[in-house]
Amino acid sequence: MSAKYEARTEAAKSLLCVGLDSDFAKLPEQFKKAEHPQFEFNKWIIDETHEYVAAYKPNAAFYEARGDAGLRELKMTMEYLQMEHSDIFTIFDAKRADIGNTNNGYVTAIFDWLGFDAVTLHPYLGREALAPFLDRKDKISIILCRTSNEGAGEFQDLKLLPYMEVISPEPLWKIVAEKVANEWNRNGNCMLVVGATYPEEMKIIREVAGDMTFLVPGIGAQGGNVSAVLKNGRNSKGTGLIISASRSVIFSDTPREAATTLRDKIQSYR
Amino acid sequence: MSAKYEARTEAAKSLLCVGLDSDFAKLPEQFKKAEHPQFEFNKWIIDETHEYVAAYKPNAAFYEARGDAGLRELKMTMEYLQMEHSDIFTIFDAKRADIGNTNNGYVTAIFDWLGFDAVTLHPYLGREALAPFLDRKDKISIILCRTSNEGAGEFQDLKLLPYMEVISPEPLWKIVAEKVANEWNRNGNCMLVVGATYPEEMKIIREVAGDMTFLVPGIGAQGGNVSAVLKNGRNSKGTGLIISASRSVIFSDTPREAATTLRDKIQSYR
Repeated sequence: MSAKYEARTEAAKSLLCVGLDSDFAKLPEQFKKAEHPQFEFNKWIIDETHEYVAAYKPNAAFYEARGDAGLRELKMTMEYLQMEHSDIFTIFDAKRADIGNTNNGYVTAIFDWLGFDAVTLHPYLGREALAPFLDRKDKISIILCRTSNEGAGEFQDLKLLPYMEVISPEPLWKIVAEKVANEWNRNGNCMLVVGATYPEEMKIIREVAGDMTFLVPGIGAQGGNVSAVLKNGRNSKGTGLIISASRSVIFSDTPREAATTLRDKIQSYR
Repeated sequence: MSAKYEARTEAAKSLLCVGLDSDFAKLPEQFKKAEHPQFEFNKWIIDETHEYVAAYKPNAAFYEARGDAGLRELKMTMEYLQMEHSDIFTIFDAKRADIGNTNNGYVTAIFDWLGFDAVTLHPYLGREALAPFLDRKDKISIILCRTSNEGAGEFQDLKLLPYMEVISPEPLWKIVAEKVANEWNRNGNCMLVVGATYPEEMKIIREVAGDMTFLVPGIGAQGGNVSAVLKNGRNSKGTGLIISASRSVIFSDTPREAATTLRDKIQSYR
């Protein structure tokens, strides 16, 4: 499944992921009045940007905010993508994680009903809890490792003792990266979320995670730096990055131009 | 808002929370054929158990598994509760957490559209990220601290390196409890998830968390022990617990009897 992302990256010459964070309140007026506002806006964004894009990533919160109507429009968006651009990698930024079999409900909803290729997941409950996701060899689990927000360090920076035998403490984000790389990724279907706003951490995570792909939010509105991401985050094949921008592309006056410019900027640093 | 739970606890003489984990595949045949299977099953469970119950807790995964139809039936369940039993505390076991303003979508969906009193949240992104939940003084944020699953310790048991002021190392679950109690709970609207399957940890969490209320899953099908929970989890007022059972009540042949028996058993240890 990671092969799908890699193939698309190569075909589109792009590491760009567009976040479909289609907040109803921020939609242009003509879409607000449409019958299916979030779907019709997404369709327009997809039509404008697909040539330059390796992945799309809707965030669940913006659809759930509109209840079952939002969920239906997300489903319509996925159907449109599957019909028109089935080679583009799709990520549900839902940040889920429950215990054991309860996760089966999310697996069914996200991978089978909506048809996403990948989902973002919290690590706090451990590998045993996430087995229903990790056991899906045909789908990708993207584990939150170093998140892009300002206060990410409150727990993620705590220095913990990873194993009995290990004497030197390591920050939690590094332990998460090591565990996912060495123990969770047996099916080769894991990726990590590593925020563009923390390039130094990204460098260390690349050292411990091998060639694993990183989903990198925080470019654009959050201020992450493209050249630092490429420099510190690329894997040994010069790829291994899904660089995501949301507001700065979809709420630009000219989304096509914003996507092209950002795609080209990323390519220039590869 | 925690006052709502306390008032109901007193009125119903109950600390029991029934988990509406209404997995479609496990519903009795007559409900599977109904027009709104999950809603009609929930209505039946509520009619049978409400007298003995302080809280209801649907888990999001079981509804999302049925897409927008499941979400509509969850909404119908909440409307029924608000109309018939508005004094019963309601918890959305959704285990959410995104960064900053993105959480506004979840806040709108969970507190305003669905009308829940409380939601469960992952701590990994830190307090700054969860501000949209914590700022809702009229609603309760229930933070995952020590979860009930077998593999909970993978990260939660990692020990913080002793630093200047701290002489003995502390596990992550204890640090989460301390931070929520001392720093996150300024509006008095936080609770903690502490699994019944870890009574020793519960004892320590009670010591650091003052009188804060614990949501305690893991009774019933998961094997948690009621007497140990009461002994180690009660606060200074002899309460501060929301003891949750799901499958062992709702998929019992006689849910009313299962709820009464469990309510009475919990009361006997108070």
